[in-house]
Amino acid sequence: MTIRFGVIGTGAIGREHIRRISQTLSGGEIVAVTDVNQEAAKQVVEQFKLDASVYPDDKSLVAAENVDAVLVTSWGPAHEQSVLAAIEEGKYVFCEKPLAVTAEGCMNIVEAEMKHGKRLVQVGFMRRYDSGYVQLKEAIDNNFIGEPLMIRCAHRNPEVAENYSTDMAVTDTLIHEIDVLHWLINDDYKSVQVVFPKKTKHALDHLQDPQIFTIETESGVSINAEVFVNCKYGYDIQCEVIGEEGIVKLPEFPSIVMRKDAKLSTNVLMDWKDRFIEAYDKEIQDFIDSVRETGEPNGPTAWDGYIAAVTSDACVKAQQTGEKEAIVLKERPAFYSKNTECKTV
Amino acid sequence: MTIRFGVIGTGAIGREHIRRISQTLSGGEIVAVTDVNQEAAKQVVEQFKLDASVYPDDKSLVAAENVDAVLVTSWGPAHEQSVLAAIEEGKYVFCEKPLAVTAEGCMNIVEAEMKHGKRLVQVGFMRRYDSGYVQLKEAIDNNFIGEPLMIRCAHRNPEVAENYSTDMAVTDTLIHEIDVLHWLINDDYKSVQVVFPKKTKHALDHLQDPQIFTIETESGVSINAEVFVNCKYGYDIQCEVIGEEGIVKLPEFPSIVMRKDAKLSTNVLMDWKDRFIEAYDKEIQDFIDSVRETGEPNGPTAWDGYIAAVTSDACVKAQQTGEKEAIVLKERPAFYSKNTECKTV
Amino acid sequence: MTIRFGVIGTGAIGREHIRRISQTLSGGEIVAVTDVNQEAAKQVVEQFKLDASVYPDDKSLVAAENVDAVLVTSWGPAHEQSVLAAIEEGKYVFCEKPLAVTAEGCMNIVEAEMKHGKRLVQVGFMRRYDSGYVQLKEAIDNNFIGEPLMIRCAHRNPEVAENYSTDMAVTDTLIHEIDVLHWLINDDYKSVQVVFPKKTKHALDHLQDPQIFTIETESGVSINAEVFVNCKYGYDIQCEVIGEEGIVKLPEFPSIVMRKDAKLSTNVLMDWKDRFIEAYDKEIQDFIDSVRETGEPNGPTAWDGYIAAVTSDACVKAQQTGEKEAIVLKERPAFYSKNTECKTV
Amino acid sequence: MTIRFGVIGTGAIGREHIRRISQTLSGGEIVAVTDVNQEAAKQVVEQFKLDASVYPDDKSLVAAENVDAVLVTSWGPAHEQSVLAAIEEGKYVFCEKPLAVTAEGCMNIVEAEMKHGKRLVQVGFMRRYDSGYVQLKEAIDNNFIGEPLMIRCAHRNPEVAENYSTDMAVTDTLIHEIDVLHWLINDDYKSVQVVFPKKTKHALDHLQDPQIFTIETESGVSINAEVFVNCKYGYDIQCEVIGEEGIVKLPEFPSIVMRKDAKLSTNVLMDWKDRFIEAYDKEIQDFIDSVRETGEPNGPTAWDGYIAAVTSDACVKAQQTGEKEAIVLKERPAFYSKNTECKTV
Repeated sequence: MTIRFGVIGTGAIGREHIRRISQTLSGGEIVAVTDVNQEAAKQVVEQFKLDASVYPDDKSLVAAENVDAVLVTSWGPAHEQSVLAAIEEGKYVFCEKPLAVTAEGCMNIVEAEMKHGKRLVQVGFMRRYDSGYVQLKEAIDNNFIGEPLMIRCAHRNPEVAENYSTDMAVTDTLIHEIDVLHWLINDDYKSVQVVFPKKTKHALDHLQDPQIFTIETESGVSINAEVFVNCKYGYDIQCEVIGEEGIVKLPEFPSIVMRKDAKLSTNVLMDWKDRFIEAYDKEIQDFIDSVRETGEPNGPTAWDGYIAAVTSDACVKAQQTGEKEAIVLKERPAFYSKNTECKTV
Repeated sequence: MTIRFGVIGTGAIGREHIRRISQTLSGGEIVAVTDVNQEAAKQVVEQFKLDASVYPDDKSLVAAENVDAVLVTSWGPAHEQSVLAAIEEGKYVFCEKPLAVTAEGCMNIVEAEMKHGKRLVQVGFMRRYDSGYVQLKEAIDNNFIGEPLMIRCAHRNPEVAENYSTDMAVTDTLIHEIDVLHWLINDDYKSVQVVFPKKTKHALDHLQDPQIFTIETESGVSINAEVFVNCKYGYDIQCEVIGEEGIVKLPEFPSIVMRKDAKLSTNVLMDWKDRFIEAYDKEIQDFIDSVRETGEPNGPTAWDGYIAAVTSDACVKAQQTGEKEAIVLKERPAFYSKNTECKTV
Repeated sequence: MTIRFGVIGTGAIGREHIRRISQTLSGGEIVAVTDVNQEAAKQVVEQFKLDASVYPDDKSLVAAENVDAVLVTSWGPAHEQSVLAAIEEGKYVFCEKPLAVTAEGCMNIVEAEMKHGKRLVQVGFMRRYDSGYVQLKEAIDNNFIGEPLMIRCAHRNPEVAENYSTDMAVTDTLIHEIDVLHWLINDDYKSVQVVFPKKTKHALDHLQDPQIFTIETESGVSINAEVFVNCKYGYDIQCEVIGEEGIVKLPEFPSIVMRKDAKLSTNVLMDWKDRFIEAYDKEIQDFIDSVRETGEPNGPTAWDGYIAAVTSDACVKAQQTGEKEAIVLKERPAFYSKNTECKTV
Repeated sequence: MTIRFGVIGTGAIGREHIRRISQTLSGGEIVAVTDVNQEAAKQVVEQFKLDASVYPDDKSLVAAENVDAVLVTSWGPAHEQSVLAAIEEGKYVFCEKPLAVTAEGCMNIVEAEMKHGKRLVQVGFMRRYDSGYVQLKEAIDNNFIGEPLMIRCAHRNPEVAENYSTDMAVTDTLIHEIDVLHWLINDDYKSVQVVFPKKTKHALDHLQDPQIFTIETESGVSINAEVFVNCKYGYDIQCEVIGEEGIVKLPEFPSIVMRKDAKLSTNVLMDWKDRFIEAYDKEIQDFIDSVRETGEPNGPTAWDGYIAAVTSDACVKAQQTGEKEAIVLKERPAFYSKNTECKTV
């Protein structure tokens, strides 16, 4: 059984996933597309030589009989409506982050999915499929470091566009750490406080950069998360988990080792798109494979999307108040209590 | 256009490629299989739920109208006949190493392909698709280290099966270095000499292990290649190219970094199958994509298969004589002279 | 001119410095010793075959005509009196940390030294002589990373004795970071806040372990300093300075690289005494050389001792209150304003 | 007891050792100097403010009553005579490499020392005192890697002076590997063969560079030693010992870790003098301490000097013949059979 995808939103990430499904992965095909810009949708069909219909809107696409799964890659504020429409039709959904732009929106989706009675939704948090994070998770789950006590991580970009604002350090950048870290240590967040260190001269006036988030979890783990989006030197994702018996840390991105000009060096990526390219492939392949094999997606759930939204709100509030802000989640429904490991190498 | 594959030989590597094409890669499908053990071929069709016919022999499979490309994964001595049959029918061929068990057999294929008039054959040397080797090649081609002067490499296995013999250090193990190194530095081999260092106690009586091959190229590069197949500690592929301006070296296989028990450590693979898993995916995907897009495969050619056969023969002779043995290649036909870069990330 | 030392306090660290001066370094000799335990002082003279007189107390030792410099290695509460006595006599002093157990005590010394009119006192903060920190300092002073914005550091011990208490995480452990970091970035501390992450099961009931100190400097640099004294895996000192243009980090302690048992590893020290052994040698040699060549010691000053005391007090208070505590220093006297670089390789 | 040194030869290395003994190390002093250039000898006395007499020649210096030990740092061809004179007088000798310029000269010294009846001579092979080699030796002696089977090493300089000739790759460069490797694996050399790879354009016409020496030991260990003295990128000493159970390798020279300009890097030394600076200190300190404590030096012996001379001769011959040349040592006298470990950290 090939999974027949309908794609809502044919911008950059939409086209990237279309290319992925039609040219790289196995077991999926694109049969429907829509975009607020209908012309753009038609061009994509041509560009990728798709055998796909262009629909006028998300509702009609979702309702199309030959659509098995919906890929939501429109702009954030439109996600909630499209995901709810898909659930209404009982269609599988792979929704890029954010699941919805508000915690309430995420809860609407959670409730709709629970009402439907089985998992349909996967949120596009690809880091759980990165081989480095997977190795970290295995080590932690295998008790290699004992109880985790602290996490140090950093999310660094060489530079950002002019429109990048202080809150986007949370909603666009830290959001990936927010999703991956609670999954990594099987814990929930409790509070967050933000420190603004001395600002780099490379940041524009309106932007606070770098920022340091101190996040506390329910079990007491202290997370120190640096966001630094004008670090100049490279795109660099660091994560180190310090436990009672030892420490595990993400590998550096693999690079040839060079000796030249009085330096022993490896390359650091400059473009974030190169960093998780395999994780993107694996997350969609896993979505396809899980739906085909088990009838449910296997990756980050709607509940994970809700956690991200609540935590993200608290982090932005903490940016504004300078105080320690509580991260208050509703009780996790039994529906989402099963261990949702991703199946990767 | 989907590339429809016929598979000759459904042993371990055959099944692995069938799984790859049917479940992981994009743009190919399995439509025909054959094996000297017909029952095995039938089981494979069931196991992978293939929509594929089982043929009594390679000739009938190759002749099947719906077969676009042939995957030769039978045992080595049968390769030549199957590849020649495919060329005869004008079918594309992806042939696992060796292309043929003799240099003469390889030349027969080279001549058949040239007579046919365009490239049909790709040999399964996957290392050219490994991201580490690709980075090395880019650095060298971009003149980052100036002229290459020396190469140091090692091919280490933790252990080998009882039937592994001294000459298999060349034909099963060093063969991968033989293919990838001349590609890496755009050079041809000229001579080889073998040294047998002190033998490890972990090798069986009949096996010389480790072995060191000193290979000289036409341009004067000196290659020091260690084969050590009972090294106990891991499966480890090392390659370092020393040039006039600097040195480039393969990355270690990416692993989380651990601090525990008075050690700072990373994991070394124990199973060779984990090392080149992405390279295997990429080589077949590249074969599919190139055939679809350009009408010709893009990877290692029949001529590369011939180079491997001649060099391999000289290495085995050098094992026996202890002398420096010449590696004498025929002149490279213009047909194979174009730069055959592989298209990879 | 050989520097003739009188040693006050012949406990472990006293004997270690006696051995160092008499057997390893150049230009110094031990001519006088005293200890509250006179018998111990006599034994040390014998043990090291010193040509040294045993004095009944610090005052008489300091007054001895043939004593050029005093080494204060008694217990902390006795330091202030001995150092003041030495200054009174115009003798040079090398005083192990702490300079005095209160900020007031340190100020007494500062004032006495200023009254004397030239530098006599060096405090035993050896990290400034560690080749890793020296390299960091050079990189920062040479503007290699632009303005420092953040520091991440960790001070980890495998385990501590039963009597190690929560405040000793500051006074015995963090004290070294307190001295070295402001020197490293040429800055002063402004505030500190402490977080107690989940406690390791390896810590005794009375001890909070690990602890994280967030220290802010006058210029806005944010320092994240972890103290973890039951980390089990090793004695590990980490320090990373993140600047506008790049990052510099301490080297790992140099170790052979091992490949064995599926691991690529280096050794982590288990004993803190091995970590700064060369720095200890260099700090005393530099004290000797500077006094001989310039007539003044060149290392950490009495003012640095005062900074350490004030900062240490604030850190302990922050442990107790959980609040952000101010670090309030008096204005730096011009006497101490000259750049006091240590002269090391 | 202070060891009173007489120094024969006040060139660069002589002055360096004079500075070391008078300003850095403990337990030695310079009481006599001589040089073929008497004026130079006098200047050195002034420069270092030595309380030392200037002697007209080596014989008179050696005979001076207040000289306990002789430091031979004249040019190579003069070493033999000075060392023999010292032995004749029963004085200790620290002789820079070479012990003598011919194997016969070395044997003369060996025989004179044996006739004298106890060890007086230490040869200045400092690598045995380098902490990296010491760690390698400990790992090998502790059977961490089982039986050594192969060694790979490299000795690389960024560039050399115009007068550096092809044979100096042995006598000035490889000579250090020659001494340290047999000590490292407790073995003796048996044969050597040389390969000249493609020559770097950075070498002058008269110089073959790089060169690769394949040395076989009595027990069958195969050593692959690269000498590359115009490698441009740095001064780099590599050594890796491959055993039955694992591999140990020298650490890189410790450097801060930098992230800048899309590179993760450490510094490689450019100046050889920085590489073994601590080893030089340790070898002389060990000479002083051993003579004081045991009445005999403890480092490389006259016999080690003989081994170096014989091996060096064979290597130079192998450069000329291109053939495998035997390394033929006389039988090791019982006098030198005791295990001469160096006592280092």
